[in-house]
Amino acid sequence: MATAPAHTALVDRHRPTLDAALEAIRSRAYWSPHPEHPKAYGEEAAQQGRAAFESILGHRIDLPQPGTDDWVGEEVSPYGLTLGVTYPHPDPDVLLPAMRAVLPAWRDAGPELRAAVCLEVLARINARSHEFAHAVMHTTGQAYPMAFQAGGPHAQDRALEAVAYAYAEQTRTPERAEWHKPQGRREPLELVNTFTAVPRGVSLLIGCNTFPTWNGYPGLFASLATGNPVLVKPHPRAVLPLALTVQTVREVLGEAGFDPDLVCLAVDRPGEGLAKELALRPEVRIIDYTGSTAFGNWLETHAHQARVHTEKAGVNTVVVDSTADYAGMLANLAFSLSLYSGQMCTTPQNLLIPRTGITTDQGPKSYDEVVTDLAGAVTRLLSDDARAVGLLGAVVNPGVSERLAAAPQLGEVALASRAVTHPQFPEATVRTPLIVKVDGATEETDPAHLREWFGPISFAVAVDSTKDAVELLLRTVREAGAMTVGAHTTSPEVEAMVEAACREECAQLSLNLTGGVYVNQTAAFADFHGTGGNPAADSALCDAAYVADRFRTVQVRRPA
Amino acid sequence: MATAPAHTALVDRHRPTLDAALEAIRSRAYWSPHPEHPKAYGEEAAQQGRAAFESILGHRIDLPQPGTDDWVGEEVSPYGLTLGVTYPHPDPDVLLPAMRAVLPAWRDAGPELRAAVCLEVLARINARSHEFAHAVMHTTGQAYPMAFQAGGPHAQDRALEAVAYAYAEQTRTPERAEWHKPQGRREPLELVNTFTAVPRGVSLLIGCNTFPTWNGYPGLFASLATGNPVLVKPHPRAVLPLALTVQTVREVLGEAGFDPDLVCLAVDRPGEGLAKELALRPEVRIIDYTGSTAFGNWLETHAHQARVHTEKAGVNTVVVDSTADYAGMLANLAFSLSLYSGQMCTTPQNLLIPRTGITTDQGPKSYDEVVTDLAGAVTRLLSDDARAVGLLGAVVNPGVSERLAAAPQLGEVALASRAVTHPQFPEATVRTPLIVKVDGATEETDPAHLREWFGPISFAVAVDSTKDAVELLLRTVREAGAMTVGAHTTSPEVEAMVEAACREECAQLSLNLTGGVYVNQTAAFADFHGTGGNPAADSALCDAAYVADRFRTVQVRRPA
Repeated sequence: MATAPAHTALVDRHRPTLDAALEAIRSRAYWSPHPEHPKAYGEEAAQQGRAAFESILGHRIDLPQPGTDDWVGEEVSPYGLTLGVTYPHPDPDVLLPAMRAVLPAWRDAGPELRAAVCLEVLARINARSHEFAHAVMHTTGQAYPMAFQAGGPHAQDRALEAVAYAYAEQTRTPERAEWHKPQGRREPLELVNTFTAVPRGVSLLIGCNTFPTWNGYPGLFASLATGNPVLVKPHPRAVLPLALTVQTVREVLGEAGFDPDLVCLAVDRPGEGLAKELALRPEVRIIDYTGSTAFGNWLETHAHQARVHTEKAGVNTVVVDSTADYAGMLANLAFSLSLYSGQMCTTPQNLLIPRTGITTDQGPKSYDEVVTDLAGAVTRLLSDDARAVGLLGAVVNPGVSERLAAAPQLGEVALASRAVTHPQFPEATVRTPLIVKVDGATEETDPAHLREWFGPISFAVAVDSTKDAVELLLRTVREAGAMTVGAHTTSPEVEAMVEAACREECAQLSLNLTGGVYVNQTAAFADFHGTGGNPAADSALCDAAYVADRFRTVQVRRPA
Repeated sequence: MATAPAHTALVDRHRPTLDAALEAIRSRAYWSPHPEHPKAYGEEAAQQGRAAFESILGHRIDLPQPGTDDWVGEEVSPYGLTLGVTYPHPDPDVLLPAMRAVLPAWRDAGPELRAAVCLEVLARINARSHEFAHAVMHTTGQAYPMAFQAGGPHAQDRALEAVAYAYAEQTRTPERAEWHKPQGRREPLELVNTFTAVPRGVSLLIGCNTFPTWNGYPGLFASLATGNPVLVKPHPRAVLPLALTVQTVREVLGEAGFDPDLVCLAVDRPGEGLAKELALRPEVRIIDYTGSTAFGNWLETHAHQARVHTEKAGVNTVVVDSTADYAGMLANLAFSLSLYSGQMCTTPQNLLIPRTGITTDQGPKSYDEVVTDLAGAVTRLLSDDARAVGLLGAVVNPGVSERLAAAPQLGEVALASRAVTHPQFPEATVRTPLIVKVDGATEETDPAHLREWFGPISFAVAVDSTKDAVELLLRTVREAGAMTVGAHTTSPEVEAMVEAACREECAQLSLNLTGGVYVNQTAAFADFHGTGGNPAADSALCDAAYVADRFRTVQVRRPA
């Protein structure tokens, strides 16, 4: 058991980082303690990370959890590699009561020590960012540079942001307060009140295939920092990054004198549906989920015993009205469509372009010219296969390929998707973006482009006017949800109209991005990921609402 | 339309009160801007309030709302008076879209002006506290002094507390932030971000019979202050206090240049079930409810399109282990059992007393002695009918009388309930508390005392030991929920055991109350009402979690 001095040292070590994070969520200025450049981790880190990853392959992640009744795992990398790693399969009747049983000591540790433990975990994960990058790459299909950044430091930033919000919420009520109520000429009424943050219960994280750490960390760390044990149930195709995370959390918990079973891993057999079973267990009081709308809706309508946070599907729109930097706009959009083969929940799908054309710094451009020029920008960006694969990554699963085969039937193909051969991984399926021209003025009740086409599939939607584009934007967000909205315009009136639409339907807006900031990327501490106010997600990463209901406050009143 | 200077004046007028409230929710010291003594409102206020109330009787509350298709209302005072007041009955297909349509201007007013409008409403309601007291008295059966305090200044305090939390949450993210991300030798990435609080949609308040303002105001004002239109659907027996509230809000909104239809009233015909219909409407995105567990559970499992906050039934326990002030303990408990005839969600129901007796400053007392002495304390407290009715109030509805008739069959009656004739209102049903001795060691799976017996019904539960009392407390909170827990003990070990139980099952605890503070009363700004962490309620009044999800934040990113 760790001693009180050890706890003090842990708090002292991480308090400056916590304080800086608390200031960052207040100011929302740029800040990160996790360098995003791989070279910042030292000369040998890349090689050591690769070796560490390779040493795991073919082995068991041997977590000594209660109630393990089997070892399962069938991950195959989108780059072709069979991982051969196995993980604990749980008996929930044993595991969940055991996790609930170790809650009290973690609850009683208090918000500051819990935050320090979380920050120690993040520091250790950060030091292993190269190893995690390989794990993310070979489960999601992200190219290595992206797997490193998004799966490493950027995910760690989102985790730290969640810890900061959790700490702030738990400490806004003082631990002790004196209460003196005057009673006229009589003696005042006097009480001493104490307040304790109490966790809800076991928290269940249901991970996703594409961003297991980036999308998984906020819920995991928000729940852990507020005192809840966390059961991590990864997507069966993307277990390893979260398994390594669980391993690290358990290691730090144990060293700090807490029971490692506060954080456990649950991996299911193909088709077993373990998430459904776990989601309805009475011990489970919080659920964080990223994935399909169908299962997200199922969780929201069935898991009544839990607080459910979901990120589901959406249809992201860019309104193209006019620009003062035509080349910059095209380059920026081309990058956004190409990054990770459009397999981000934030990738633009529908580009709304007036059929009468747009005004630009290069003169007026017709609808066809804009679409052709965008197709050209994508083609140029991805012309070199070796560089293209560094941006595109690999197709994450067969569903993407199926949609890519079906989408050309929806209209005139402006840019065909091209199969790219990966120089290092010839088994990987790598595809460039497809752009299809469709008519946005159809009177259909359910046009295909108002559904999500997850993958490198975008629609150049011809609209009668920018006003019609805004109407279609409103309808799209209202009916299909959106994680992101973009717009390009030089007109203050159009800008105001698009802003009003985003306020009306509650969507995050990026205006006139022509440089190195992309609509599909957000930065922790400064940017909210989603709003939680449209059908794409019911929470934002990360705000007070995301953490405030993960604990409750127990007050004790005593006469003074 | 009010001018900007008028808005500035409104903000200037109320900013000091808002600032004081913000400080109070932080320090949790005693504070209130609303005097609780009726005489503080001036010589003539009582008479004017009565006259104002009487002038309403037999008339229509003529709110010019859209979609009113009938005028309904059948309130009869528990004191016998037929109110004869009618209210708008809505066509939801007309009313709800109209309310949604006026949201944007209120959203765009921003958090500070919204808070100022809410505080102006509260100032006007506060000035009419005597009038509201009559309305509360003649719908709930509360005695006048309680109807004045709990229905007036204390309810106004809870409203102001909700406004303060709402303002704090909406302003913790700045309206504008600059973002500069270093890029090594390249130019930094630079953005200007703006953040806007955006309400969820129409908020539905489903009021209760016993505390229409005290339990209704937090949700009403939390939603209004975060920009949501609010539809107020009172309990059919307790419409008037909320109708007067809606009237006042509409008056202030109109004067401030906002559409009064931001807050509307919906009253249903007996048995119509309007609340169910409204709760499932797509426009309704937030629901606040106080009432039966059955309907609360129905809302939680059906109204998926809304954020649902419920306060339902619970079983409140007092553990009686030992005391250094036997007389004070008995007097305090007697008052708690008698106040408003036990018709508070916070009234103790089960008094857990070791059958081996307890130690006191007056020597050891057997179980029988404790029960007999408590019965004696209640009897003495209520010996004078004229004074008793000032504490007891009237029985609010026939369900209470039915339970009062059934409960004596559950065990040996230690104190029979007595019918008291009200000197001014002979038609009122006034009943003193019933105390029934039951055995807490039964092995039954569903003992009667683990269900809520709402009304002046308490059980002196004989337990084998204090340790068994704590076990029973744990089971009670876990299975039945609790708004309050009390304990009397001079033992630090027992105190620690009861505290641990309350942390474990998430219940609010009051220790050794022997003076003028009672377990069934909480003070806004200092005390949380409920925890939101056990089956009695899923929210606490009032904390950040109660307000943080009533709005979302829309961010706009622009290149700097």
